Amino acid sequence: MPKISSKGLNMPSSPIRKLVPFADAAKKRGTRVFHLNIGQPDIKTPQIMMDAVKNFDVDVLAYIHSQGSESYRIKLTKYYASVGVDIHHDDIMVTTGGSEALMFGLYSCLDAGDEVITPEPFYANYNGFSISGGINVRPITAKIEDGFALPPIQAFEDNVTEKTKAILICNPSNPTGYLYSKDELLQLKEIVLKHDLFLFVDEVYREFVYDGKQFQSVLTLEGLEEHVVVFDSTSKRYSACGARLGALVSKNKELIQTAIKFGQARLSPPTWSEVGAEAALDVPQSYFDEVVAEYIGRRDLLVKELNKIEGVICPNPKGAFYAMVQLPVKDTDHFCRWMLESFDLDGQTVMMAPGSGFYSTAGFGKNEVRIAYVLNKADLKTAMECLKVGLERYKEVEA
Amino acid sequence: MPKISSKGLNMPSSPIRKLVPFADAAKKRGTRVFHLNIGQPDIKTPQIMMDAVKNFDVDVLAYIHSQGSESYRIKLTKYYASVGVDIHHDDIMVTTGGSEALMFGLYSCLDAGDEVITPEPFYANYNGFSISGGINVRPITAKIEDGFALPPIQAFEDNVTEKTKAILICNPSNPTGYLYSKDELLQLKEIVLKHDLFLFVDEVYREFVYDGKQFQSVLTLEGLEEHVVVFDSTSKRYSACGARLGALVSKNKELIQTAIKFGQARLSPPTWSEVGAEAALDVPQSYFDEVVAEYIGRRDLLVKELNKIEGVICPNPKGAFYAMVQLPVKDTDHFCRWMLESFDLDGQTVMMAPGSGFYSTAGFGKNEVRIAYVLNKADLKTAMECLKVGLERYKEVEA
Repeated sequence: MPKISSKGLNMPSSPIRKLVPFADAAKKRGTRVFHLNIGQPDIKTPQIMMDAVKNFDVDVLAYIHSQGSESYRIKLTKYYASVGVDIHHDDIMVTTGGSEALMFGLYSCLDAGDEVITPEPFYANYNGFSISGGINVRPITAKIEDGFALPPIQAFEDNVTEKTKAILICNPSNPTGYLYSKDELLQLKEIVLKHDLFLFVDEVYREFVYDGKQFQSVLTLEGLEEHVVVFDSTSKRYSACGARLGALVSKNKELIQTAIKFGQARLSPPTWSEVGAEAALDVPQSYFDEVVAEYIGRRDLLVKELNKIEGVICPNPKGAFYAMVQLPVKDTDHFCRWMLESFDLDGQTVMMAPGSGFYSTAGFGKNEVRIAYVLNKADLKTAMECLKVGLERYKEVEA
Repeated sequence: MPKISSKGLNMPSSPIRKLVPFADAAKKRGTRVFHLNIGQPDIKTPQIMMDAVKNFDVDVLAYIHSQGSESYRIKLTKYYASVGVDIHHDDIMVTTGGSEALMFGLYSCLDAGDEVITPEPFYANYNGFSISGGINVRPITAKIEDGFALPPIQAFEDNVTEKTKAILICNPSNPTGYLYSKDELLQLKEIVLKHDLFLFVDEVYREFVYDGKQFQSVLTLEGLEEHVVVFDSTSKRYSACGARLGALVSKNKELIQTAIKFGQARLSPPTWSEVGAEAALDVPQSYFDEVVAEYIGRRDLLVKELNKIEGVICPNPKGAFYAMVQLPVKDTDHFCRWMLESFDLDGQTVMMAPGSGFYSTAGFGKNEVRIAYVLNKADLKTAMECLKVGLERYKEVEA
C-alpha cells in the first residue's frame, strides 16, 4: 500500500472543523448544537447579492479571467477608495475565498524551508497552508493578560533569521478580536523595512470594528508599497461564506504577476460567486451600520456572561466577531468534544473551537477556546448557559 | 524590495492562458478571435443546472461541509454506478474544480522532491501544481506518429526511481484526445503494483468517447483499491466550467481523510456551485448523446480540414475535445502570438495553445499546438481558414 506524504500526515485537522463528526452525531441524537466554533454568521446575506445570481442569465456558465473579471476589479477599487485605500484594479487578484489569497500570497513569496513570523494565537489555517507549502511558522505569543496586543517588537527581532521572509497578522484579529493601532502598524513597518520582509495582513474583518475605533488598512502606509500583501474576502463582509470569493491586493507588481500564474493553473474563480460579489458592492452603508450594531450587542452580552462564570476570562474584543476565552479546564480539546458527545442541557449543547489549534507553540492554548459570536443574542444566552452548566458537570469528569 | 519565491519564479504561465492579453488587445482592435486555446465549450449548460441556482432560496449563503454535502455525495454515487463504478459516498471528496482535486491528490501523496511519472504531452497544469508543491514531473514522451498511445511500459520502468510515488494519466487525454485501452490500463496496473505507486487518473472527459469505443474507469480495476485516485469535474461534463466544482475519488480511506484535512483549511467548496452540480446529475442521457454527436461532427471536420493544409499533421482523437497538431513552423509560441498580434483574415483570427507548454522535456512540442474543438462547425471552418492563410503568410515572417 503506497504511503501518504509527510506533508499530508503533518497537516493538522482544522480546530474549527475537526469536531464536526461529533456535532453531526449529536444532531442525529436530536440534540440542538449551537455553532460557536466557526465564523459562520447567521446575519442575512444581502438580497441584492442573492438576486444578482438569481437573475444571471447566460447560455454557457463559462470560466472568467484567472485574475477575476476586469469589471469586478474596477468596481472593487471604488470599494477600497471608500475605506481610504487608493489602489489600481491591476493590483487586485480575485481569488476563490480569502483562503486562496492566503495560499497564493504565501506560495508567491515563500519557498519550502522559509519562515513566516506571526503572533499567536492566530487563524488556524495559517498553519495548514504553511505546512502545505513546506513553510515554517514562527509564533510570537500574544498574551491573554495583555488583551492579545501586539507582542513587543523585540520579540519579532529575536525571531528574525536568514530564512524569515514575511510577517503575517490578522487585523482585526481572528481569533482574538484585537484591533491593531496605527502605532503598532508603524512598529511593524520599521521591522519589515529593516529586514526587507513581506508584510501579509489579513483584513477580512475590516468592517467589524467597535467602540468608535477607526480601522487603518496597511495599504495606506507609505513606503511599504512593495512589501504589503492584503488578503480579503466577501465571506464575512456580506455574510456570504459559501460564495468562496476573495482577493489578493498588493502594489508589488511582480508579486501580483506571480500570483496570477498560480491562478492560471486553477483557471478561474467561481463565476456565480463573482456575479454575486460584484452586486454586493452596491450594499449601502446602512447595512454595515446595522450589522455592526448587532455584533456589538452580541459581544457585550457574550463578554458579560462569560466573565460571570467562575474561572472564565474573556478580554473585550475590539473588532471581528471572535473571542479567545480562558476556561477552568485542563484540556479544551477534550472538553469541547465532551460537550458534544456526553453533555446536553435540555437537549441543547454548544460547539466551540479548542484553543490549541490556534497556537503553534506546543502545549499553548490548552485551557482556551475560540468562541465566534455569530448567533443572535437569545441563542448566545442559551449557549452560555449550556457552557456554564457544562463546566460545572465537567469538574467531575476531570476529578 | 523583498524577493519573490523560487517556486513563484519557476511557476510557468499557463500555455492556455498566457496569450490572453494579446487576444484582449486584438479584440480591442475589433478583431474577432476564435478561442481554440482553452477547453471552454460553447455547448449550452443544462437549464436544469442554471434553474437550480436561480431557485436556491436561503437567508444565509453559508459554508457547506469541507468534504462536500452528504446529499450531493450520495447522489454522485448513483452517477458513478451509471458509468459502472461502485463507490461509497465517503470515498468522494467534493473539490473546487478538478484543479483542486489534482492539487489535494498530489499534496496528499507526494512531498517536495518526490516524483510523478506522466506521459507527455500532458495537461499543462499538472506541471503548475507540481511546481507549486515542489514535486518533480518525469515525462515519458508519447509520439504523434503513434497517435499519442501509451509509451512502452519499459519507458515507465526506466523512469522509476526511489523518489517515484505516482503515475499520472488523463483518460481520455487532454491534450491529445487519446483513449487508453483496458490493456493499457492493465499494463499500468502491473507497474503500479510492482513499485507500490499511486495511480492518478484524470477522468474529467469520461463522457466524451467516440466511434463506439467504451470508456473504462480505472476505479473498476480490481486489486488497485488503495492505489487509484481519480480526479473528476462538472466543468466539461455539463459545459459548466465556471462552476468550479469537482471531486477527488479514492477507495484509499487514509488518502481521503488526508485530502479532507487540506479541504478543511480552505473551509468549503462554493455553495452555489454545489447546488448547480447536484441538480445537473438529473440531466438525461439524451443530453450527452446529443453533445457527443456534436463533438464527433466537429472532430471530423477539424481533422479533415487540418490534414488538408500542407505540412499539418493531426491524428484522429478518440475522445475528449482536443487535438495535438503538428504545424509547419519552427516555434508555435511565436506563431500563436503572431496570429493574435499581427494577423487577421477579414477581421478574424484564431487563438491556439502553443505545444511547448504541454511537454516538460525542454525543446519538445515547439512545432505543435493544442486545438480545442469547442466551437460550432461554422466557426471551426472559418478558424481553419484563418489558420491556413496564417500559416502561408507566416512563411515570410520565418524566412
